[in-house]
Amino acid sequence: MAPVDHENEHPVPAYGYAARDASGHLSPFKFSRRATGETDVAFKITYCGICHSDLHFIKNEWGNASYPAVPGHELVGVVTEVGSKVTKYKVGDRVGVGCMVQSCRSCTSCAENLENYCPGMILTYGSKNLDGTITHGGYSNFMVCDEHFVIRIPDNLPFDGAAPLLCAGITVYSPLKYYGLDKPGMHVGVVGLGGLGHMAVKFAKAMGLKVTVISTSPNKKAEAMERLGADAFLVSRDTEQMQAAMGTMDGIIDTVSATHAIVPLLALVKTNGKVVLVGAPEKPLELPAFPLIMGRKLVGGSCIGGIKETQEMIDFAAKHNIVADIEVISIDYVNTAMERLLKADVKYRFVIDIANTLKP
Amino acid sequence: MAPVDHENEHPVPAYGYAARDASGHLSPFKFSRRATGETDVAFKITYCGICHSDLHFIKNEWGNASYPAVPGHELVGVVTEVGSKVTKYKVGDRVGVGCMVQSCRSCTSCAENLENYCPGMILTYGSKNLDGTITHGGYSNFMVCDEHFVIRIPDNLPFDGAAPLLCAGITVYSPLKYYGLDKPGMHVGVVGLGGLGHMAVKFAKAMGLKVTVISTSPNKKAEAMERLGADAFLVSRDTEQMQAAMGTMDGIIDTVSATHAIVPLLALVKTNGKVVLVGAPEKPLELPAFPLIMGRKLVGGSCIGGIKETQEMIDFAAKHNIVADIEVISIDYVNTAMERLLKADVKYRFVIDIANTLKP
Repeated sequence: MAPVDHENEHPVPAYGYAARDASGHLSPFKFSRRATGETDVAFKITYCGICHSDLHFIKNEWGNASYPAVPGHELVGVVTEVGSKVTKYKVGDRVGVGCMVQSCRSCTSCAENLENYCPGMILTYGSKNLDGTITHGGYSNFMVCDEHFVIRIPDNLPFDGAAPLLCAGITVYSPLKYYGLDKPGMHVGVVGLGGLGHMAVKFAKAMGLKVTVISTSPNKKAEAMERLGADAFLVSRDTEQMQAAMGTMDGIIDTVSATHAIVPLLALVKTNGKVVLVGAPEKPLELPAFPLIMGRKLVGGSCIGGIKETQEMIDFAAKHNIVADIEVISIDYVNTAMERLLKADVKYRFVIDIANTLKP
Repeated sequence: MAPVDHENEHPVPAYGYAARDASGHLSPFKFSRRATGETDVAFKITYCGICHSDLHFIKNEWGNASYPAVPGHELVGVVTEVGSKVTKYKVGDRVGVGCMVQSCRSCTSCAENLENYCPGMILTYGSKNLDGTITHGGYSNFMVCDEHFVIRIPDNLPFDGAAPLLCAGITVYSPLKYYGLDKPGMHVGVVGLGGLGHMAVKFAKAMGLKVTVISTSPNKKAEAMERLGADAFLVSRDTEQMQAAMGTMDGIIDTVSATHAIVPLLALVKTNGKVVLVGAPEKPLELPAFPLIMGRKLVGGSCIGGIKETQEMIDFAAKHNIVADIEVISIDYVNTAMERLLKADVKYRFVIDIANTLKP
């Protein structure tokens, strides 16, 4: 097979940053994107969030990378062109794209607005597109995407803080809704205070819930309660604190992807309590049946959200002035940012200022 | 502490079979029951089912036995006396009692008709009652129980086949309802074809579901499909069969209490699929997060059911002529029955003919 000529693969020149191998080092990359099709929206990217998945992907830790690899699935910007059949957007609109750019549009999941669970779902980067080429993400100057997968960014949301909503935001919003943990007065726990966790606190508070952050780091307490507005804080290694909170929560959103014990979390929830995993530890969890049975508890999962719900989430965020807490960086800082991300040294999301720092 | 004088602990003489130690050997036992209180119903026991829990209990395998121990929590019979404030029952009514005889009546669970999850719930046997004495179950001549915990047995249900509904029946009916696996046309899997499993097949079929039995024993196929009416049968060790059934089920009721793999079951359910444990393996299950997240699947538990739902289940059973498949035995066969139960040598529930075989 001849190597792909990335600059001429498609008709429209594009540029961005790509990893060339599993070192994950990102450097300038010239490539190309398809012309704006009938149902496509093209937009100039202004900001792109850095998700931990980007790091896994460029280092090929999930074994699915194809190099050069342009990551980024929290991209926002301004529409520059729309296809002849596009009805939802016009030039100048503020839009964004999250983790997916296409799905089969005909299966049961797609019919239920759950494109995120469609077996034919195409990811924003590193996925084989309908034309057989590999998708490239938002660490780049512009995007072309079917209008169905484009999200409208309400005017009152700043682009930079809104970008992470497209992955981190929907990842925690969707399970709060699906598992019924969205009724005012309910008490939810949020395990882990990173990119996902801090969004979970904000959404849960806006829904009228009591929120307890559960973390291994006692030094995150002030941050969680004073800055993010959590109602309580539990140090997961403090047996006494954990004991005192037993059976008090309606549910838990567990954002931690490091291996950790699930049993203490099951003890924190009431009868009918739900422990929802949105971070995926590599090793299987140890799940005893007894606490599940005796309290009709469940351990479930959730993966981003469908397009309709993503728009609903963004509109909810706009109404409640919810954005991510971010550190804006220039594109040439991206490799340093990745190193810091690996050490969880960011509060709470890096966002790349694409418009002002990415040059051809 | 002086030993309990079982014959004079309460005013009304009673007799039954009890285990005296962890050998679990059952032999005749004289004891006593309380006088019929204001809100109590007294009834002559006609039949009592043998649940696997009885076996665990008399051998003290759960560490909670107090000897002499009279097991039995699937008891049915005819009302002989009612207290002055009893409104639901009168002498001559056909009634039964399941796994519990009292609860706190004031907690959130009790308020929601979920007495089965009340922290103060009192079990039918081996539990400390409100007066401090230990409860004794249905391997005995009569029962006294608060009317709230007494279930009406509809006239068209035979006593013997109805008895196991009070534990085995509700244990599988309740999760089908709670987890939303009760919509006609849905496809559920039933893992294990024993006392619980055969009831799950019957209830699920009556709800209009497609039912697939999943078992390690290929020789149960004819039984499952021809006698119980299952639509399909999967041998869990047959990788090819399991592979072909991947992603086809809305949910699974897992009745197996031997340690077994949960991953192949997660693979059988669709997006949003639910794997519900009603059997409790001693060792924790290995639960990988990835399949939960990627398909928004869940692993949950369920424990018997509340009183309101138990009555609803019995009425549903009466409407659809559902009873357990049973082998009726005399009380003097009970120790042999326990040995056979240990080898799963029963189709599918032993029921003791108390009225005709238990003598003072």
